[in-house]
Amino acid sequence: MTLYNFSAGPAILPKSVVEKAREGLADLDGTGIGVMEHSHRGKAFLAVYERAEAACRRLAGVSDDYDVLFLQGGASSQFFTVPANFLAADQTADYLVTGSWSQKAVKEAERYGSVHTVCSSEDRNFCYVPAERRYSDAPVYVHFTSNNTIYGTEFREEPAVPDGAFLVCDASSDVFSRPLDVSKYGLLYAGAQKNLGPSGVTLVLVRKDLVERGSSDLPTMLQYRTHASKQSMYNTPPTFGIFAMGLVFEWIEEQGGLAAMAEHNAAKAKPLYDFLERSELFTPTADADSRSLMNVTFVTGDEATDKTVVEQATAAGFDGLKGHRSVGGLRASIYNAFPPEGVTDLVAFLEEFERTHG
Amino acid sequence: MTLYNFSAGPAILPKSVVEKAREGLADLDGTGIGVMEHSHRGKAFLAVYERAEAACRRLAGVSDDYDVLFLQGGASSQFFTVPANFLAADQTADYLVTGSWSQKAVKEAERYGSVHTVCSSEDRNFCYVPAERRYSDAPVYVHFTSNNTIYGTEFREEPAVPDGAFLVCDASSDVFSRPLDVSKYGLLYAGAQKNLGPSGVTLVLVRKDLVERGSSDLPTMLQYRTHASKQSMYNTPPTFGIFAMGLVFEWIEEQGGLAAMAEHNAAKAKPLYDFLERSELFTPTADADSRSLMNVTFVTGDEATDKTVVEQATAAGFDGLKGHRSVGGLRASIYNAFPPEGVTDLVAFLEEFERTHG
Repeated sequence: MTLYNFSAGPAILPKSVVEKAREGLADLDGTGIGVMEHSHRGKAFLAVYERAEAACRRLAGVSDDYDVLFLQGGASSQFFTVPANFLAADQTADYLVTGSWSQKAVKEAERYGSVHTVCSSEDRNFCYVPAERRYSDAPVYVHFTSNNTIYGTEFREEPAVPDGAFLVCDASSDVFSRPLDVSKYGLLYAGAQKNLGPSGVTLVLVRKDLVERGSSDLPTMLQYRTHASKQSMYNTPPTFGIFAMGLVFEWIEEQGGLAAMAEHNAAKAKPLYDFLERSELFTPTADADSRSLMNVTFVTGDEATDKTVVEQATAAGFDGLKGHRSVGGLRASIYNAFPPEGVTDLVAFLEEFERTHG
Repeated sequence: MTLYNFSAGPAILPKSVVEKAREGLADLDGTGIGVMEHSHRGKAFLAVYERAEAACRRLAGVSDDYDVLFLQGGASSQFFTVPANFLAADQTADYLVTGSWSQKAVKEAERYGSVHTVCSSEDRNFCYVPAERRYSDAPVYVHFTSNNTIYGTEFREEPAVPDGAFLVCDASSDVFSRPLDVSKYGLLYAGAQKNLGPSGVTLVLVRKDLVERGSSDLPTMLQYRTHASKQSMYNTPPTFGIFAMGLVFEWIEEQGGLAAMAEHNAAKAKPLYDFLERSELFTPTADADSRSLMNVTFVTGDEATDKTVVEQATAAGFDGLKGHRSVGGLRASIYNAFPPEGVTDLVAFLEEFERTHG
């Protein structure tokens, strides 16, 4: 039985990356010392670090106007670090609210200044990305969550940004799954554990002028300048995670880069969405124009049947399909590293389930 | 040529731990899915988490009055998180200043309240742990750094604590290298990358009443209660790091636990300190009553000769011996996992160097 890992994150990684990570644990680049055991200040790890940063810059065309940081604490720590650096008490930041992660980001920002809601899809349990948007008069920045893991929705393009503001994005669940025009962003952050590597590393791309502008009335570790001025090595960085992330960057390059990744991902999700459109048993939960290529969420409309599908699917080797409790039903997380045959096999399984239970 | 890894951290790990980590990357506990790729909320990883916590509690006799947390951000993040939670603007915390990490901890605490210096060894470049100590009248807590990696000094026992205060310790570089009476501590933190595992995980042992008492006027991620109430899984934890740390805990148990570890470490460091005492070329930099069993620092008194020793030692397979720039000379970091034969081989090398260059 083939086992397919549909986990929403931490999630499947490319087999070749796992194999190289295993080799690195035993011996990094022929040094005789494993990657976990090298000083972060030694030549061998510095080479790892520089390879990872260079691959990241090549992949997304990150210019020298931006710092590439590898931090700890996940996207959840960026929720407060961003406003702590950039939102003063008498200022406003604009947030697009498209799920519970956006809501958490709002909650943390409210500790620092005013938060204006540009739009919210809470009225229909976040099953869409609102088209109608109202910005405040002079926001410092505009924050959005590019892909909503729980609800299976994804922005098709970056939201508009009022003059004088900069764009901030939590791209944790779709970063590097498609081309990225970094120049549109002031700051983009992403927990690694979906498209980029193991949990415990957060990629931050941030414009250098913003790094300079960030508050200096903060603990040292919360100032972006601390990390930017020291190649993310003010303190000991998560060395193994950075190593693994670098391997993933190189794997994406081998696949043809972000444009190729986007094509693969669109082709990969299509059979499942097509099936859900024609199915009489299963319904996709996200509106057609907002559907994510990373997380495909669907229900039968009956909780007991949903449960049966998940149980039988798990027994058949389709692991991690249970939907988040906020949505119920099923969720197929099919990030960059997920193999297309896993999707077609799942469709065959669901078709058979529908035929026998429909 | 045998290669010995004297890195000050990230540092050598037990061979069996590295081997098990490699197996786990490919397939965690026969699940067919690697440890990096499992959901942190799934059964397989929860079992890993619970094994790690249970082993930690057994090892150090951590009672149910304490939470065991696996956090991100390193000891450097605890430098500000501790005072952010416990030190109000009108309160004082007492710090023992025994090195640059203590100084950094002080600097962060000063943002929140008053800091009183109990003692400082800065007058002699931190080469000793001061015996004379003066506490403030009513400190909230007393903070010390149990082992000073850079300077090769270590506390023999916990400092006294005035009535009403609790003890806080940065134990990053000697945690679990000897028995630990957790009941003496309010909060103990340790970055993993010296004695406990890969970088990117911070072990925090904290008394539950203090978790309750911590400020709630803080970002969610900076409140200990956030992590304590969710088994360190409010957000996605560093799953691989926790897995590796659990393997290290189990390895320490296999070695006989903390008391056996202390015996091994004392026996391991002895030949090197004995040699340094009798050598006419090399001098230990730390005072005899303050010497660390984890980091042995020494100099020839001549920078050019120090450099030659390091170069020749490196060529002979003794890696990572260069001392920190604040002290110069050489530093042999010989944490729990460092093999005793590495120390005796180093002594033989140094003896031969002295014989031919003395």
